[in-house]
Amino acid sequence: MAPLKSFVKYDGQSQFPLENLPWGIFSTAKDPSPRAGLALGDSIIDLKQLSSHPTILDSDESPLSAAQAQHLFTQPTLNAYIALERSTQSSFRSFVQRLFSEGDDRLATDDEWKAKILVDAKEATLHLPISVGDYTDFCASKEHTDNTGRILFGEGNVLEDNWFSLPIGYHGRSSSIVVSGTDVKRPKGISVPPNSNQPVYGPCKVLDYELELAFVVGGPSTKLGETVDLKDASMHVFGAVLMNDWSARDIQKWEMKPLGPFLGKNFATSISPWIVEIEALEPFKTAAPEQVPRPLPHLDEAGKGTNYDIKLFAEIRATSPTKDGAAEAEEEEGWTLTTNTNAKYLYWTMSQMLTHHTSGGCNINAGDLLASGTISAPYDLPDPTACLLEKTRGGRKPFTLDGEGEVKRTFIEDGDEVRIRGLCSRPELGYLVGFGEVKGKVVA
Amino acid sequence: MAPLKSFVKYDGQSQFPLENLPWGIFSTAKDPSPRAGLALGDSIIDLKQLSSHPTILDSDESPLSAAQAQHLFTQPTLNAYIALERSTQSSFRSFVQRLFSEGDDRLATDDEWKAKILVDAKEATLHLPISVGDYTDFCASKEHTDNTGRILFGEGNVLEDNWFSLPIGYHGRSSSIVVSGTDVKRPKGISVPPNSNQPVYGPCKVLDYELELAFVVGGPSTKLGETVDLKDASMHVFGAVLMNDWSARDIQKWEMKPLGPFLGKNFATSISPWIVEIEALEPFKTAAPEQVPRPLPHLDEAGKGTNYDIKLFAEIRATSPTKDGAAEAEEEEGWTLTTNTNAKYLYWTMSQMLTHHTSGGCNINAGDLLASGTISAPYDLPDPTACLLEKTRGGRKPFTLDGEGEVKRTFIEDGDEVRIRGLCSRPELGYLVGFGEVKGKVVA
Repeated sequence: MAPLKSFVKYDGQSQFPLENLPWGIFSTAKDPSPRAGLALGDSIIDLKQLSSHPTILDSDESPLSAAQAQHLFTQPTLNAYIALERSTQSSFRSFVQRLFSEGDDRLATDDEWKAKILVDAKEATLHLPISVGDYTDFCASKEHTDNTGRILFGEGNVLEDNWFSLPIGYHGRSSSIVVSGTDVKRPKGISVPPNSNQPVYGPCKVLDYELELAFVVGGPSTKLGETVDLKDASMHVFGAVLMNDWSARDIQKWEMKPLGPFLGKNFATSISPWIVEIEALEPFKTAAPEQVPRPLPHLDEAGKGTNYDIKLFAEIRATSPTKDGAAEAEEEEGWTLTTNTNAKYLYWTMSQMLTHHTSGGCNINAGDLLASGTISAPYDLPDPTACLLEKTRGGRKPFTLDGEGEVKRTFIEDGDEVRIRGLCSRPELGYLVGFGEVKGKVVA
Repeated sequence: MAPLKSFVKYDGQSQFPLENLPWGIFSTAKDPSPRAGLALGDSIIDLKQLSSHPTILDSDESPLSAAQAQHLFTQPTLNAYIALERSTQSSFRSFVQRLFSEGDDRLATDDEWKAKILVDAKEATLHLPISVGDYTDFCASKEHTDNTGRILFGEGNVLEDNWFSLPIGYHGRSSSIVVSGTDVKRPKGISVPPNSNQPVYGPCKVLDYELELAFVVGGPSTKLGETVDLKDASMHVFGAVLMNDWSARDIQKWEMKPLGPFLGKNFATSISPWIVEIEALEPFKTAAPEQVPRPLPHLDEAGKGTNYDIKLFAEIRATSPTKDGAAEAEEEEGWTLTTNTNAKYLYWTMSQMLTHHTSGGCNINAGDLLASGTISAPYDLPDPTACLLEKTRGGRKPFTLDGEGEVKRTFIEDGDEVRIRGLCSRPELGYLVGFGEVKGKVVA
């Protein structure tokens, strides 16, 4: 099947072709009210403007009336849209794909409306796309869990038995979830310095990133006491975003016994601004790793579990001292690749995480986030570790940043930027589906 | 100072005198829209009706105009009101106290408006009073933590060093917070049966309650990266509710290493419907226990830490087999007291919990809940343990329910109801400040 063609022009390397159409909330200088948009090539489809068009939405073909669309797309979050039935969302996606296809003249030949509806992405500010009701962070990568266990507790350490029987997860903090581009203030907290047994309060000295994928719950809410079967789980997922689960390792280490991470995590969690719909990821489904031992029946995919083949990269860039106060560096300059991994390596699948989450009766709502945990890759691949704790073996093996001079890092320093990108590609398809990026700079 | 007197009559044993005036969301058959109310004696002050009065609110004396009040009090949660400046809330509280005082004729002599504004509490349905953005559960009782440690890990077990350096806490699930009276479905989950090493999935077999107090964050939100000083912490608290943190001990035990409780807690958390304002608790402040070792400076109350003297009770009632299908038992019949404790025993104070929470830069919003964790009392008092894990020494010592027959319990069985009540009293004051109750029945 040939790639779709749009009258909005973009090349084959665009992350946002008509097959992707990720959802976001944006504003512009001309209209500063945050509103819903879809990324298409280098443009954003302004859904507020589209819903004010006199005829397009009030046709039989659109699953939303202009009034409904106006109501949904002028809100400052996507929650109301995300809570619709998945079948309505699917119809609307097809509708927009047709509307922007080459050969469809409803908009293509109407320069006035085209100019209203298509916003240059460079002129837009992207906002947090959802109000996150509840955020859960899993720990679904075997490589990451195994690695960190051996780093923290010695090479002989093996994964706990419970890890293989359920996707271990914990509740995170929703209030401190921020959109890409938000500066992250180095957190303070209590930790015990090396070679001491006295806890002290002060700025985190072991600041890390964690490369994760987070699924956005969609569709109608479940009821308290209701459990979602494995076969229905994907119907409760609207899409996915990239996540940087910033981690203060020294604070986390001291506080987490026995109730888990708290201040070590809740100072900031960054997500990418574009939510890629789960339907856009369908062509990139791939078999999940074999699970031995097999999970209990309610979590057993019976060998048919699927992951998404999403290439994931983390990079670090240090603020060059000479640039202080000067203009920002070019977007593409000065980054050092630190992680090269893929969502397909996750041991526990998205469906298993969601089913487990509801298997005790916990209710889920549109806009909840289920994050994968740090996604490391098999150890024999290049740059497989998806956080610096793993990469530097607990700080014992610094690495060198690319570029002039010998700039070393063990953990994140003030002024450093971290960027995570995600991309789906299968050469035979002829198009890409990208997640864009989630980026953040650490400030003192 | 003599107790306040109101033209709304109640006796000296009322939990809701004019000095209390707790906040709730209620509806009635006549007006089924959930709206804000204040409990006063056996009545509820309907603030929606009050804000429609032609003159009372539009006087210089009221800190809210009728339009503001109408906007705030017709919402289905109290979040917008709770987010106001604490000084506005304090003025409004005084304003209502004067309005309903004996001798104030604005309403007292106006039977028509009095009938509109005063709703018989028996005719009201109480709803969840807030939309909880983020819910945090601490573990601030030394007695509880020490007790459970010794039960689970042996008599020689001592508290971890970190416990004395900070109020240990974890993020809880907001979506499953329910109001008193909501049935709780026995959760399912994965656990390892006694004398086995094979995890199984099924209904929880070790269901427990935890008696807690939860503080409701109020006032304007803090910013990400901002920390609240100990001296300012109480200005960020609107009030308090009772909480039953239902716990599935067998599920929790298997899942919680190393990231903390998850399904063992997130199936339901019940709170009382009335939020007692922090100002109503002022007369019941009392010195908090001495802290040895002294906390680090940012958490050090320097011997001046205060708790609230709130008597707290938990009771259990079994569904009598003969009552099946018959009318509900009388409210006051058949309860067995299982916990007799007091919020004054908490080792970590409310201010310390809140300051610690923000000390890493985590932002807090009106409507967030900060729960104390299970509040057990010193061991030499009667019924000091605030959960059944402690009471039955991990299930090894069953207890007998009051009443005919020898009905034994180790943990909660289907059909059992649990009720938690809270009451402040100081004989010299001549009035009580009550929390009402949080109640729930466990169903299969």
